[in-house]
Amino acid sequence: MELNNIKDPKDIKNLSIKGLEQLSYEIRQFLIENLSKTGGHLAPNLGVVELTLALHYLFDSPTDKLIWDVGHQAYVHKIITGRANQFHTLRQFKGLSGFPKRSESEHDVWETGHSSTSLSAAMGLAIARDLKQEKHRIIPIIGDGALTGGMALEALNHIGHEKRKMMVILNDNTMSIAPNVGAIHNHLERLRTNERYLKVKDEIEFLMKKIPAIGGKVAKAAEKIKDSLKYLVINGALFEEMGLTYFGPIDGHNFEDLFTTLKLADKTDGPVLVHVVTKKGKGYRPAELNADKFHGISPYKIESGEVLKKEGPPTYTEVFSKTIINIAKKNSDVVAITAAMPSGTGLNKFQRVFPERFFDVGIAEQHATTLAAGLAIDGLKPVLAIYSTFLQRSYDQILHDVARQNLHVTFAIDRAGFVGDDGETHHGVFDIAYLRHLPNMTVMMPKDENELQHMLYSAVEHHHGPIAVRYPRGSGIGVQLDPELRQIPIGKFEIVKQGYGIAILAVGPMVSLAEQAAKRLEEFGIFPMVINARFIKPLDEELLFQLAEKHFQILTIEEGITSGGFGSSILEFYANNNLDHIDIKIMGIPDEFIEQGSIPKLRELVGLSVDNIVNQVRYIATKHKRRA
Amino acid sequence: MELNNIKDPKDIKNLSIKGLEQLSYEIRQFLIENLSKTGGHLAPNLGVVELTLALHYLFDSPTDKLIWDVGHQAYVHKIITGRANQFHTLRQFKGLSGFPKRSESEHDVWETGHSSTSLSAAMGLAIARDLKQEKHRIIPIIGDGALTGGMALEALNHIGHEKRKMMVILNDNTMSIAPNVGAIHNHLERLRTNERYLKVKDEIEFLMKKIPAIGGKVAKAAEKIKDSLKYLVINGALFEEMGLTYFGPIDGHNFEDLFTTLKLADKTDGPVLVHVVTKKGKGYRPAELNADKFHGISPYKIESGEVLKKEGPPTYTEVFSKTIINIAKKNSDVVAITAAMPSGTGLNKFQRVFPERFFDVGIAEQHATTLAAGLAIDGLKPVLAIYSTFLQRSYDQILHDVARQNLHVTFAIDRAGFVGDDGETHHGVFDIAYLRHLPNMTVMMPKDENELQHMLYSAVEHHHGPIAVRYPRGSGIGVQLDPELRQIPIGKFEIVKQGYGIAILAVGPMVSLAEQAAKRLEEFGIFPMVINARFIKPLDEELLFQLAEKHFQILTIEEGITSGGFGSSILEFYANNNLDHIDIKIMGIPDEFIEQGSIPKLRELVGLSVDNIVNQVRYIATKHKRRA
Repeated sequence: MELNNIKDPKDIKNLSIKGLEQLSYEIRQFLIENLSKTGGHLAPNLGVVELTLALHYLFDSPTDKLIWDVGHQAYVHKIITGRANQFHTLRQFKGLSGFPKRSESEHDVWETGHSSTSLSAAMGLAIARDLKQEKHRIIPIIGDGALTGGMALEALNHIGHEKRKMMVILNDNTMSIAPNVGAIHNHLERLRTNERYLKVKDEIEFLMKKIPAIGGKVAKAAEKIKDSLKYLVINGALFEEMGLTYFGPIDGHNFEDLFTTLKLADKTDGPVLVHVVTKKGKGYRPAELNADKFHGISPYKIESGEVLKKEGPPTYTEVFSKTIINIAKKNSDVVAITAAMPSGTGLNKFQRVFPERFFDVGIAEQHATTLAAGLAIDGLKPVLAIYSTFLQRSYDQILHDVARQNLHVTFAIDRAGFVGDDGETHHGVFDIAYLRHLPNMTVMMPKDENELQHMLYSAVEHHHGPIAVRYPRGSGIGVQLDPELRQIPIGKFEIVKQGYGIAILAVGPMVSLAEQAAKRLEEFGIFPMVINARFIKPLDEELLFQLAEKHFQILTIEEGITSGGFGSSILEFYANNNLDHIDIKIMGIPDEFIEQGSIPKLRELVGLSVDNIVNQVRYIATKHKRRA
Repeated sequence: MELNNIKDPKDIKNLSIKGLEQLSYEIRQFLIENLSKTGGHLAPNLGVVELTLALHYLFDSPTDKLIWDVGHQAYVHKIITGRANQFHTLRQFKGLSGFPKRSESEHDVWETGHSSTSLSAAMGLAIARDLKQEKHRIIPIIGDGALTGGMALEALNHIGHEKRKMMVILNDNTMSIAPNVGAIHNHLERLRTNERYLKVKDEIEFLMKKIPAIGGKVAKAAEKIKDSLKYLVINGALFEEMGLTYFGPIDGHNFEDLFTTLKLADKTDGPVLVHVVTKKGKGYRPAELNADKFHGISPYKIESGEVLKKEGPPTYTEVFSKTIINIAKKNSDVVAITAAMPSGTGLNKFQRVFPERFFDVGIAEQHATTLAAGLAIDGLKPVLAIYSTFLQRSYDQILHDVARQNLHVTFAIDRAGFVGDDGETHHGVFDIAYLRHLPNMTVMMPKDENELQHMLYSAVEHHHGPIAVRYPRGSGIGVQLDPELRQIPIGKFEIVKQGYGIAILAVGPMVSLAEQAAKRLEEFGIFPMVINARFIKPLDEELLFQLAEKHFQILTIEEGITSGGFGSSILEFYANNNLDHIDIKIMGIPDEFIEQGSIPKLRELVGLSVDNIVNQVRYIATKHKRRA
């Protein structure tokens, strides 16, 4: 079958199991082939081919609602729902999203990107269905990693309580992105291996068989307890205790097993959980062997799985990774925490050097943050490495537990600013706005990878109280890394280019753009001062007062939402100090969610380009002349 | 024993059980007596008298760490640690805090106010202890309600995984604030009643006794399965599956039971959970009968438990409650959600009228928010009523699930602004800053209780997309409530007093202060315009342009953190529109956590008073004259 000819799930409903197996093979080849060029979440999708086909085969999307948790495993679903011909545009500007998108298809009922939301959404859809007296199925598909997220557990608690009909598919690939951690994981492990349960079950059955021979009262008692034992010996005690009927574990790559169990589960009243064991990367040897690497991958060679690497400077993540190890070597109080992202954050290397000082808490950003607070309260120096977008999950913990108690926790915020192809759910563009209004908080961003190492050192070794270092996704700008770490004075900006008339206050990677713009502006006879506004909070008040005294006009540039952002804090500073004559212009991200695309493309889209900085400064300069 | 003479937990260690019982009685009398004058969290503290004494009797605070979840049940702990003589100042300005405070005592190792943080903090303290090779005990005390919070479950998952020594005390009073909900609650209920477990246990034991008589292979098999059955029949399967050793349930008001089990648990390796059943309100009849009412209570008459009511206008909560019922009567799509606060939010009345359209999800703000998103996606009109401070927990869900998908969820944000005596953990002063930078979001605040009803109507019936109505704690200002609900045009301010030269843009209760100030300013010959800035987002751009044209100076007033707040958005508006000549002054809450105290006292403290508005306007007016 030509995949491009599958326009609708109906197109697969007449296939035999052989046909479905053939289709599975073709889908895997299609994914391996296409993603070798575009990159994308290969391993998770190779793992759910049969599961996705089985769900579309047995049930009727979009009447029945499939809700993909996280959503990066919905490629097969996209293929089956008529989007195979768009895969060459995957995760590109204006192209096919790497996540479910309601605007793409009526089969995408729920948009995601962040983990652990599917069960809450499913609960909402189930209540709505019941109130409207409709009858369709609600089927959230959630990974074992996502299940450790607190909100998924909150939802499970509610689902078990309300007892509404719903089929939760637990896609258990024994990993979130990295190998999974936690007690729930251990529970699943026991279910998979069936170790203790099977042993007990066997022994009880053996005993039961003997009992009829005994006769009399004992036999009667035995009859009576059979039911009770069944309850106790049942698999999935954790889920059963939560009020869901448990089915499984079943082989997620075997259509017959899938069909049998899904049909059985479908006939069961109330909420059920079907435990499906899948293999991440299934059917592509390099991905099977290294599912972590192939979770989300750049273009690669199909034969070897080798990533087509661009040569270039080290990434900010790599610099963070190396620096934090060096700091920890000299200070045994330094401990590091990740929420299921050891390799994404670069802490996997820290883990190898300091296994006993490294903590992967699973997908649990709230716990990660308050855990750090607990460590800090007893005098340790926790470093919490989380992507900007995921740190949103622990806003209250940062506020209530860390900032309010003024504890020394270092937040290493990776992927700050645009992240590119993961799109609107993943851009790290809100953290300036949600962190800078917190009392006691210090927030900084380096202009390059060399400054990052000094900032980390300053944060961990020379600070008290909560402090965040935010840094962008991808490579540094290629500067030399100083061999010695040095302290950056808190709240001090850096003048990177002297000038007059106009001062550009730029944050992070915007400093480099501002420098380029300043060079170009020379030909127009405009010589702005370029300032590395490396502290978003606290501000360099001394310098800001000087700028006011010297009647500078100001342009601020940040790769973050402008509402409540850095530029906004500059406005506040001058307003609070009654310096109303200062003319301030703000550049940043407008008040909307920004789509996917390459980082340079997106910066251009919102006007964070050298060209636009040149234009803005020229406009300001003209205004100045008009007034003068 | 004189309670005031207890300066240290050591002072109770020589008491007999009789002596402890006598002390318990005295503590209860002390609490009932004192709180009848000051108000406070009576019922939770009456419930933990014996438990707190037992913990301090057996273990050695502050070497051993007692970590109180939520913290409102730490009064007995405060009495035992030498603070009895401060109880007359409880929850008052500069008085004893109603929550653990590190500045008050070395026995308060962890500060709280929000729920479900204790297990994460305990995990941090346990790791720190082990890394430092110390030996002290870590004892978090968490309620059954708090246990349903996602972050507590995340922590439990990590605790069960790491297997470090820790004693979790589950204080099960079958309530959070309201009667508890959820599958975990049901599990606890089964444990308490022991129904199924006890039955099975009895039957198996009966069977086991008969088996030796059988002899041979069967007897051997029976021996072998005894151990396994023990595992299966054990109580607390949910916790055991999570990796904690379960003890209980035990009577939390019986010292002998407490001592026996706590000692046993203390000798057990790894993490243990001791399930202690307590009675909220124990020992004071009115509180036992109405634990919800006596959870946090104003001054009352001891004999009857009757609250000393001040006559006055209805509270904003009451107006919300009544209005939302009226709206729901005419529109069957309206559903309401609370996170364990049915009476606090006033939704208990909605529940009585529309039981099938009301959802209490327990302490689970994240799930509550995404549940609302799920309901909205299928066309219902969810209204989510949460206190401002607790809504912080679902910042990411508001952003990622509601705002990004642009879903029509109405956030009814109660307790916005200062909340008074609950202090710094509870003030609702961040929501303007954390909501206004979210794309698609609309945020409004009424100037009085009459406007609140129109705003709710406008939000639920005449809007699409996410919309928040924030309103203060306590009584309205006493205006007439219009019998007919009317639509308020989105993004339109209201001029409440014409004037010239200076425009005061005031938010919510600040409008009334501004009006009073304007009246006072007349005697100085200053006639400011007073504007009800009822939309924090979107702004009334037309009016703002008009003010600029007419060369108004502007003063903004909000009861929220000024960093990134409403005033900041006005600064941004004029900067973005190149209207730099506008002189803007911002009034709000400074960049710090504000302590406890009465709301008028705190407003005065931060300068949100009529006096200070008068001063600010006079200052601006003088400046204006200087320039003119």
